[in-house]
Amino acid sequence: MKLTINQKDFYHGVQIVQRAVASRSTLPILKGIYLEAIKDKGLKLIANNLEMGIEYWVEANIIEEGVFVLPAAELSNILRELPAAEISFQLDESNYQAKINCLNSRFTLKGYQADEFPQLPEVEGAISFSFNSLTFKEMIEEVKFSTSTDQTQPTLTGGLMVLSPGEISLVATNTYRLAHSKRELSKALDLEEEIKVILPGTTLNELNHLIADKEEEMNILLNNSYVRFTFNEIVFISRLIEGQFPNYKQVIPVDFKSSVKIDRLEFLNAVKRVSLIARLDSNVITLDINQDQMSISSNSSEYGDALELVEVDLDGPEQSINIDANYLMDVLRTLNEEVVNILLIGSLNPLTIKKYGKDDYIYLIMPVRTGV
Amino acid sequence: MKLTINQKDFYHGVQIVQRAVASRSTLPILKGIYLEAIKDKGLKLIANNLEMGIEYWVEANIIEEGVFVLPAAELSNILRELPAAEISFQLDESNYQAKINCLNSRFTLKGYQADEFPQLPEVEGAISFSFNSLTFKEMIEEVKFSTSTDQTQPTLTGGLMVLSPGEISLVATNTYRLAHSKRELSKALDLEEEIKVILPGTTLNELNHLIADKEEEMNILLNNSYVRFTFNEIVFISRLIEGQFPNYKQVIPVDFKSSVKIDRLEFLNAVKRVSLIARLDSNVITLDINQDQMSISSNSSEYGDALELVEVDLDGPEQSINIDANYLMDVLRTLNEEVVNILLIGSLNPLTIKKYGKDDYIYLIMPVRTGV
Repeated sequence: MKLTINQKDFYHGVQIVQRAVASRSTLPILKGIYLEAIKDKGLKLIANNLEMGIEYWVEANIIEEGVFVLPAAELSNILRELPAAEISFQLDESNYQAKINCLNSRFTLKGYQADEFPQLPEVEGAISFSFNSLTFKEMIEEVKFSTSTDQTQPTLTGGLMVLSPGEISLVATNTYRLAHSKRELSKALDLEEEIKVILPGTTLNELNHLIADKEEEMNILLNNSYVRFTFNEIVFISRLIEGQFPNYKQVIPVDFKSSVKIDRLEFLNAVKRVSLIARLDSNVITLDINQDQMSISSNSSEYGDALELVEVDLDGPEQSINIDANYLMDVLRTLNEEVVNILLIGSLNPLTIKKYGKDDYIYLIMPVRTGV
Repeated sequence: MKLTINQKDFYHGVQIVQRAVASRSTLPILKGIYLEAIKDKGLKLIANNLEMGIEYWVEANIIEEGVFVLPAAELSNILRELPAAEISFQLDESNYQAKINCLNSRFTLKGYQADEFPQLPEVEGAISFSFNSLTFKEMIEEVKFSTSTDQTQPTLTGGLMVLSPGEISLVATNTYRLAHSKRELSKALDLEEEIKVILPGTTLNELNHLIADKEEEMNILLNNSYVRFTFNEIVFISRLIEGQFPNYKQVIPVDFKSSVKIDRLEFLNAVKRVSLIARLDSNVITLDINQDQMSISSNSSEYGDALELVEVDLDGPEQSINIDANYLMDVLRTLNEEVVNILLIGSLNPLTIKKYGKDDYIYLIMPVRTGV
């Protein structure tokens, strides 16, 4: 393998695939990046930690084709520090060493034979559709904080993706709260029944990082074991989580007694302040909602107490409920809305949050029973 | 105690004194900030972790005088999150609670009786002089990274301050490297002999943080146990480290064989890159200096190797020396010079770095003996 390549392009490509490099692995080659130089095509980079894999092509002048695997962390560090100039990259086949030269810098880096590197799986027998990448990023952001971190319930550590002919949903829950984000598909799918798969939480996080902040078409390809996202010249493949996701539909209330209209930022700032006291104790805050005002309070007898008042519009009976302040702050930080809608049944039923006047998102927080 | 105070001013003052709050202490009151409201003067804030203490006055409208101690972390968090408006602050003497009200926010915070709070020591029988605060900040930055982190040699964890009639110096060493920064005093001191005191490393760090980036007169007051710095309306008092600082003068070479002129940034970037390989092993790099070029190399046989070439002007015989890359990067990152001067005697003598054409700073790195 012999090629010349621009330092910025090479580093950018390595940064993209590096997200799928195994950080801890007993197999050293999984901490590497697979490089394949193909004439007239450029340099292909692949990382694969067996749970997910990323493939990305970098423009390069290929003088001699070849394949090789280099340790990702060292390669990335070296590329980052090299001057913004042309890099000459050459593989010494006799001793598995790559020579990386750039202006006055000469590096030799030991690597691995490429044939031991696990290639990305083919996703066959699959459903394929297109979706707006920015909309998908928004959906991920709306649910990902609700996944569980409890590894004893693997299905809850991921997000459920539900496909119906006209709609795509993402759902995440740790059983104390639930987020459900849905959007219409621009082109109906030919499905006989709903398709449900569970994407790992890390996959949601990495996708969220990789999707750029610009509108783009994303292709999604899906079978029983894998999902493949193609966007912005990135191919991202993830294993799916096996198992049964809880029946989320039955916990989402349909009828409410009280509906509250509240300014999101004012509400968030008030909860943030009350939580400064609440978190010294159990992190529970009390919402008391009257006709035109909500009081948010915490009473942590040992350290002090806090009370905030926020203007609201209430439709329905007055309500009082105890909930976890962090669960509330997570959603208020995420929603990109000026006004949000809080829906309540009673102090023992979940508090529900929607975007005001929109139906594409619903978030539930189970109440905390306090009392002596 | 009863007062009104601006949120921004109060938070700013708390941020300043908070640097001297005890982070870990068995005495809860040391995690607090002492507040004293005095009519026509404002609100005095003090923090004191017994090693160092800070006093700062904040403008406030004092309605009723009084003293009280509040937990620093909670007070600071609350003030940070409150809206930029007037705060009404009142002490409920009956139950040691402070009431903090601001627009629609009401906080109650439990505190401590002020009479148990350790006041700042008086610095008596002292030497007093004035110095430019920015110059002192520069001196601190030039030496502080060279202090030792080895707590078994307490004197090396601090910086030695040396006063002679016309000069002030700071010296720090961990015995493998040494930094010596000196400046002239604008007004000669009336001293019969040199004065030497050791400032704790944390004191150097906190001073460096607190000194603003603008020219100001700093008053320094010194006795056998304490040093007091007054600058920018801050009073900063630190205990001194007792014990004998090593005789640094005898290790600083006076005669050199070779003098090298090198571009600081080019040198730093080259060392940074070579250290990417060197740090996989022992972090040792080799400098080979010829008439017009220095090669910087690392040979970490297991992972690869690196070689960088940098243009130099050499006056004297060619040299080769092995040194720790981090010790070299620390000084090259700190010096605010375009060109630096490297001085050498031989491969077993320290490598010395000065600012080119200036005599106010000297830095030594002991060579590493490698070999089989």
